[in-house]
Amino acid sequence: MALLLEKEDIRELVAQVGLDVLIEDVIQCLREDYGRWHDFDKSARVANHYPHGVIELMPVSDADYYSFKYVTGHPKNPVDGKLTVAAFGALAETRSGYPVMISEMTLVTAIRTAATSVFAAQLLANEKARTMALIGTGCQAEFQSYGFYHSFGITEIRYYDVDPAAMEKYARNMQGHPVRLVACDSVDAACEGAEIISTVTADKANRTVVSRQHLTPGVHFNGVGGDCPGKTELAPDMLDDLKIVVEYEPQSRIEGEIQALPADSPVTELWQVLAGDVDIRTNDDDMTLFDSVGFALEDYSALRCIYEHCQRLGLGRTSSLIFTPDNPKDLFSELRASGSARQIA
Amino acid sequence: MALLLEKEDIRELVAQVGLDVLIEDVIQCLREDYGRWHDFDKSARVANHYPHGVIELMPVSDADYYSFKYVTGHPKNPVDGKLTVAAFGALAETRSGYPVMISEMTLVTAIRTAATSVFAAQLLANEKARTMALIGTGCQAEFQSYGFYHSFGITEIRYYDVDPAAMEKYARNMQGHPVRLVACDSVDAACEGAEIISTVTADKANRTVVSRQHLTPGVHFNGVGGDCPGKTELAPDMLDDLKIVVEYEPQSRIEGEIQALPADSPVTELWQVLAGDVDIRTNDDDMTLFDSVGFALEDYSALRCIYEHCQRLGLGRTSSLIFTPDNPKDLFSELRASGSARQIA
Repeated sequence: MALLLEKEDIRELVAQVGLDVLIEDVIQCLREDYGRWHDFDKSARVANHYPHGVIELMPVSDADYYSFKYVTGHPKNPVDGKLTVAAFGALAETRSGYPVMISEMTLVTAIRTAATSVFAAQLLANEKARTMALIGTGCQAEFQSYGFYHSFGITEIRYYDVDPAAMEKYARNMQGHPVRLVACDSVDAACEGAEIISTVTADKANRTVVSRQHLTPGVHFNGVGGDCPGKTELAPDMLDDLKIVVEYEPQSRIEGEIQALPADSPVTELWQVLAGDVDIRTNDDDMTLFDSVGFALEDYSALRCIYEHCQRLGLGRTSSLIFTPDNPKDLFSELRASGSARQIA
Repeated sequence: MALLLEKEDIRELVAQVGLDVLIEDVIQCLREDYGRWHDFDKSARVANHYPHGVIELMPVSDADYYSFKYVTGHPKNPVDGKLTVAAFGALAETRSGYPVMISEMTLVTAIRTAATSVFAAQLLANEKARTMALIGTGCQAEFQSYGFYHSFGITEIRYYDVDPAAMEKYARNMQGHPVRLVACDSVDAACEGAEIISTVTADKANRTVVSRQHLTPGVHFNGVGGDCPGKTELAPDMLDDLKIVVEYEPQSRIEGEIQALPADSPVTELWQVLAGDVDIRTNDDDMTLFDSVGFALEDYSALRCIYEHCQRLGLGRTSSLIFTPDNPKDLFSELRASGSARQIA
C-alpha cells in the first residue's frame, strides 16, 4: 500500500515544518543527489505538445528509488480558473517497482523549483549578492523569495510583472516577510542594482524578458520560465556573454534558453560545477546563467525529502491505488472479496 | 478535482457491471480507438530496466484525452508476496492537461489485456475456433478465459502451467463458469486440438513455451507474455511460418516476439487489419500470431470506458492530488488556508 499525499497533506507538512526549512531540506537533498549524478538512470522528459500546452512525464531512477512526475504547462489555463502548471507523481522502490508514495506535486514542484534555483545560485552567483530582481510574480514568486532570503541571504527583492494584479497578489502574500520588497514599474527598474536576476514568466513564446542592457558585471541570471521548445526569456544575442550552466544537456538543448544556440555551443552541467570539475565564476565580474528547465532528478530529491518528513509526522493516508493481493499469483480473487461472485461468474 | 479510483472502486465496478460485460465494453472502445489510429500522438513506452525487472511509463493522446500508465514487470516479486505486474495511471483532458481520473490499473490492465487479446483474435483467428489452449495460469488467466468465452465463443479451454499451484488456483477461480475446462499435464497436451493458443507466462527470459510442433493448420497464437527485451515465448524458428500482427511496430521491435527477427522483417499493425488494408487470414489454413506487448492506446480505451461507467455509477471519490486554487495565479495562498501563516512567514 502506497502513501497517498493530497494537497491538504502537503499544506499540513509546510505548516508543521515551515516553508523555509522545507526548501532548505530539499536543497540539501539536491546537493546529495547531484553529488552522485552517475548513480542515476536519466532521460529527457517525454513531452506531448499541443497548440495550447504540453503534458510531460519525467522519470529518473537509481538502485534504491524510481520517481516520476506528471506535469502540465498550459499558459492559457488561468482564463478557465485552472493552473498553468499542475502536477502529481510517485516515488517507487526500484527493487519491487511498487510505489511507496503517490503525491500531489503542484505545490511540491513550486518548492523544488525554488530549491533548485537557490542551489544553483549557491554554486554560480556571487556569494555576496544581496539584491535580486524578480521578473514575473506568478505562482513561483513567493517560493523563490522564501528560498533566496532564507537559504542564500538575499535581503532586497525588486519585483515586476506585466500584470498589476499579480504584483498586488505577491505583495499581499509577502506581507510580514522580513525581506525588503521594492515594487518596480518595469524590467529595467527591477534589474537596477540587482546581482541576481530571476526570470519566472509563464507565456509560451520566445519573449525577450531580459536583454543585453541587463548584462552588468558579475550578474547571475536565474532563468526559470524558459523551459519548453519555443518558450524562452533571454535575448539570444546576450547568451554568448554568459557562462551557461544547465541541468541535463540532452533535455536543455530542446527546452532551455540554449535552444537558440548551435547544438555544439559550450555548456556545463550543474553536477560538474558541484563536483569542482569546472570553475564557472573565476572573478567577480563573470556573468552567469542557470538555464533551468526542471529536471526529473529534482523531483526525485523533493519526493524523497517529503517522504521522510511525512513518514516521521504521520501525514497522508495509505491507498490501494497500488495493492498486494493475499496471493500475488491470484489477481482474480481480488474481484471476489466484495462478495460479488455472482456477477462475475 | 480528479476522480480517484482505488482497488475497491474497480472491484465494485466489476461487481455492478459484470466482468464479461466490462471486457466486452473495453473491446468496443478498442475497436473505436484502433479505428481512428491516426488521431493519436503515439510513442514507444519509456522503460527503465533493472536486472530484476522494469518500470514503464506509457503515454498516448488525442485532441480530447491524454492517458498514461505506470506499470511494473518484476517476475521475482511473488517471492516477496508482491505482484509481478502492478500499475496505476491517469486520464486527462488534453485541453487543460488536468487529469479527470487517477485510477488503480493492476486490475484494469488485466481487463484491458484480455480485451485486447479477444479483439485481436476477432480480427485474426478462425472465427469458428471453439477450443483454446491457455499456457500459463497466473494473474491473466481468468481474465483471458472470461473474455474468450463471452466475447469470442470459445467453449473449451485446455490449460497448463509449470506450477501446479497456479493450475489449482485457476481451476478454483473458474468454478461455476460455463466454459469447459481441461487440465493438461504439458504444453503439448494443452495444445492438442486447440485452434487458438494463448501464451501468458511471466518469466523474464527467452523461453520456448511453444515451438514448431505446435504449428497446426489454421492455428492462431495469442502471444501475451513476451513483452520485454529478452522476454519471449515462441521459438524463433517458427516465426517465419506465421503471419505476424503487432500493435505498434516501433515498440514491438524492441519488446515483442519479433525482437528475434531482422528489423526489416514484414509485420502488420493491428489497425491495418481493422481498416481492411491488409487481409491476414486468406484461408482456413493460415497460421497467425498476435505478437502482443501491450500498447498505451489500450489503456486509453480502458480508462475512458471505466471513466464513463464510474461517472454513471457514482463510484470513486474526488481527490486533491490535482487541484484548482481559488486564484489560479496564486498558488502560495493554498499553503495558508490551514491557518499556518505563522510557520510559513
